[in-house]
Amino acid sequence: MRHLIDFGDLTRGEWDELYARAGKIMDDPRQYIDACHGRVMASLFYEPSTRTNFSFQTAMLRLGGTVFGFADPNSSSVAKGETLKDTIKMVSGYADVVVMRTPWEGAAKAASLYSHVPVVNAGDGGHMHPTQTTADLTTITRLLGGVDGLSVGLCGDLKNGRTVHSLIKALAKFEDIRFFLISPRELSVPDYMRAFMVENNMPFTEVTGLEAVIPQLDVLYMTRIQRERFVDPLEYERNKGIYILTRRKLERAKEKMLVMHPLPRVDEIAVDVDDDPRAAYFQQARYGMFARMSLLADLANQPRLERTEAVEIGTAPVCRNPRCITRTERYLPPLVKKNGSADCCAFCDSPLG
Amino acid sequence: MRHLIDFGDLTRGEWDELYARAGKIMDDPRQYIDACHGRVMASLFYEPSTRTNFSFQTAMLRLGGTVFGFADPNSSSVAKGETLKDTIKMVSGYADVVVMRTPWEGAAKAASLYSHVPVVNAGDGGHMHPTQTTADLTTITRLLGGVDGLSVGLCGDLKNGRTVHSLIKALAKFEDIRFFLISPRELSVPDYMRAFMVENNMPFTEVTGLEAVIPQLDVLYMTRIQRERFVDPLEYERNKGIYILTRRKLERAKEKMLVMHPLPRVDEIAVDVDDDPRAAYFQQARYGMFARMSLLADLANQPRLERTEAVEIGTAPVCRNPRCITRTERYLPPLVKKNGSADCCAFCDSPLG
Amino acid sequence: MRHLIDFGDLTRGEWDELYARAGKIMDDPRQYIDACHGRVMASLFYEPSTRTNFSFQTAMLRLGGTVFGFADPNSSSVAKGETLKDTIKMVSGYADVVVMRTPWEGAAKAASLYSHVPVVNAGDGGHMHPTQTTADLTTITRLLGGVDGLSVGLCGDLKNGRTVHSLIKALAKFEDIRFFLISPRELSVPDYMRAFMVENNMPFTEVTGLEAVIPQLDVLYMTRIQRERFVDPLEYERNKGIYILTRRKLERAKEKMLVMHPLPRVDEIAVDVDDDPRAAYFQQARYGMFARMSLLADLANQPRLERTEAVEIGTAPVCRNPRCITRTERYLPPLVKKNGSADCCAFCDSPLG
Repeated sequence: MRHLIDFGDLTRGEWDELYARAGKIMDDPRQYIDACHGRVMASLFYEPSTRTNFSFQTAMLRLGGTVFGFADPNSSSVAKGETLKDTIKMVSGYADVVVMRTPWEGAAKAASLYSHVPVVNAGDGGHMHPTQTTADLTTITRLLGGVDGLSVGLCGDLKNGRTVHSLIKALAKFEDIRFFLISPRELSVPDYMRAFMVENNMPFTEVTGLEAVIPQLDVLYMTRIQRERFVDPLEYERNKGIYILTRRKLERAKEKMLVMHPLPRVDEIAVDVDDDPRAAYFQQARYGMFARMSLLADLANQPRLERTEAVEIGTAPVCRNPRCITRTERYLPPLVKKNGSADCCAFCDSPLG
Repeated sequence: MRHLIDFGDLTRGEWDELYARAGKIMDDPRQYIDACHGRVMASLFYEPSTRTNFSFQTAMLRLGGTVFGFADPNSSSVAKGETLKDTIKMVSGYADVVVMRTPWEGAAKAASLYSHVPVVNAGDGGHMHPTQTTADLTTITRLLGGVDGLSVGLCGDLKNGRTVHSLIKALAKFEDIRFFLISPRELSVPDYMRAFMVENNMPFTEVTGLEAVIPQLDVLYMTRIQRERFVDPLEYERNKGIYILTRRKLERAKEKMLVMHPLPRVDEIAVDVDDDPRAAYFQQARYGMFARMSLLADLANQPRLERTEAVEIGTAPVCRNPRCITRTERYLPPLVKKNGSADCCAFCDSPLG
Repeated sequence: MRHLIDFGDLTRGEWDELYARAGKIMDDPRQYIDACHGRVMASLFYEPSTRTNFSFQTAMLRLGGTVFGFADPNSSSVAKGETLKDTIKMVSGYADVVVMRTPWEGAAKAASLYSHVPVVNAGDGGHMHPTQTTADLTTITRLLGGVDGLSVGLCGDLKNGRTVHSLIKALAKFEDIRFFLISPRELSVPDYMRAFMVENNMPFTEVTGLEAVIPQLDVLYMTRIQRERFVDPLEYERNKGIYILTRRKLERAKEKMLVMHPLPRVDEIAVDVDDDPRAAYFQQARYGMFARMSLLADLANQPRLERTEAVEIGTAPVCRNPRCITRTERYLPPLVKKNGSADCCAFCDSPLG
């Protein structure tokens, strides 16, 4: 692996290797305190995301590496008056690995074309956030011993949640996963996700209530329901209690079930759940750091490419997604890829034509 | 010591140990350049305070440790949409020690209930700022050989100064301190501070002029008088010259007297004093860094608690101080402590009932 | 060398030493990864400059040193309510070297009077930016084997460009440099720069077109022409194409010519030039980092002065330059220096009287 742009690019073998190293780090972190000694990480956050930013920073620091960059485009003039290509050319001259978060879909892929060093996607708009998925899988594997054969409940807004869609796709790399999709009807998973689960022989059950299915779950993955997602706010008020996890609802869950959440939570998990041994969401944040350490221990130590390959110069964007990076960075090449049988933009994955 | 929330929590023995290590660091800083190797400090400044922030950061860096965090709530989304508890749970999963500055009184105490790692109070509103006090005591001890038996002049706004009140309370741990309290009548020390000095057998003299008492002092601690503190601005204009230290006024002071100031100064110490050997205020900032190094060398190396103790969940605040952290973080437990015979809020020390 | 305020202060021997160390670092960076272990750099950016800031930060980090500071005065309260002297006294108590960027001319010189540790000027308004010049010279020397005897084309806005003026002055330290000054007539070099080249026996040719002279050049240094610099915007539109470097224009250049640019570029170099082997502007940014490493490896390891010399206290500014640091920091001494035969302000170099 040279870059991490999309979790789907990883083979099962690459994931297993990544997790194995994360496990070693968790077992004995002192062994890794100089693993990135002398290495420098650029942390380019074109939109603020404190949790992800802190997690990457501390991952690098705990490997003995160092960090520079910006946490917000306002505190940096980089965002202004320069193409993404030029920024990446400069920054990859200073750094050994580049971590970037942007509001533009496909930006990390675009950066990887010009970078002299590995690029990690720390979230590109609504498109991908692969290290959230590595955090989730690390938590499950560490706490339950493995991922194969689990019953996974996904609860909340399953329509809009990038985290949830990524997790479903990632779980296709494992065996015998059964899903319980728990959401209001208006916020159920999109059709293409249903199609994906069918194609990959992943059985799923869709329900609108949490209490009835909770006893069957090995993992309960909670997400936030935003009031704004409802056409009718009254409908939100009527429904929200159903999707709030309380200590009382937990009583019927398995003793070893994990309660997970990508954080921040608002009120979808009651405070009285925090001291339950099944509450895994704060540990999940910490495991995310270890997963990122495993990733950086590899990528930040890769050799620098002094000369990058010439890239075709684009003249007009072929992708129609208004949030795609190719719409604003006009020199990007018109790359196309196949997702299944469909021609898609190689940056943002939107279907073309 | 697990956390440093209030200097008053330290025993004299703990202070002596802290200072002894600070002394060793000052004697030979190279011995400590790896004392925190592999350790990470979170620096959470919910309000800006550049001097304190720089002092803590450089303290950690000079021990071979590393730092992450934010310098200002605006540059962080942590401050929004999440409880203090959740932030501390996350951050103490990434860090080995948490340093925090907040505008809310009692916030550091609240954080310490949930943190997996030690918490240091870097100022919680008008309440406590214990490491300013350790900086002050380190300066005096280092430059005068000890604190016992000194005559200490406190000059300026003695009514509103948190720094001055903390220093008076801290000096109660020492023997034979004599105070000269030099201020305009409207800005003299509050009654409860006078009561404190009487209870602790600390003799004090209150005066309105600096020149008459300066020959008796071993330490002259200057603070700023803000024009806004005066009901009558003309009164301020008439008075301010009295409390400005100049080279001329210094002529009558002891040869070894220390001039101290918490910085920043505005005009309460004339520039021509800076080159006098008695001017200790810039060294004081540097000694503050060494004092913080001593503190962090201990706290950042303490074992992490994987599971924190369950904390009672509050439902309504018992404290009436509008700046108390319990007013906004409603889940905090209704903890009460005794200050003398009075029942006080265990977070902000305000009397209850 | 104790401070780096102005590249002109360096002797040719000091430059040679600086470059020799930069060369060693480039040949084997791993040898230097602990050269500043235990050393701390203050990075005080009173105005944002992301490229310069990143370059200094990564230079220090790659030497095993650490960094603190601010990237923007808004994110720091240091800029408010305190004199530059007091800030430098404090910061040089925490740091081993101070890097500062300010909008005020002469600010780095002023800081150097009070600092306990070396000061590096990272740009003081329109006055000096010596490490840009070290970056430029390092690039030329590294890629062409030396600077003596070269034909150097300077193209774009030669009237307002601080970078270009500094480079011309720096090249006076070398032998047999021939200049081609390529600019619209309204943006040609100022008279005092022409006088400087004459005095220093540096032959120069002024032209308004790039294509005719490009075959003669060893170095082509491109700079941006800002539309706002033209009295008549139509004139700008008519002219700008002449000063845009394209792959087509490059065809007639020498095979080993270097294309340089201080970055960021806007459109003065077409994207299709980037993959040409003569395009050196991204490498130039990277060489700038190595040049700064060489500088910091020396300065950050110099002994700290516990007591600085007493400095005369000024009472009224003698300099009339409204952007001079002496206009706002009134305590600065009225220092005068000779530039040639003219009495000049020792801070901002403006002629006096």
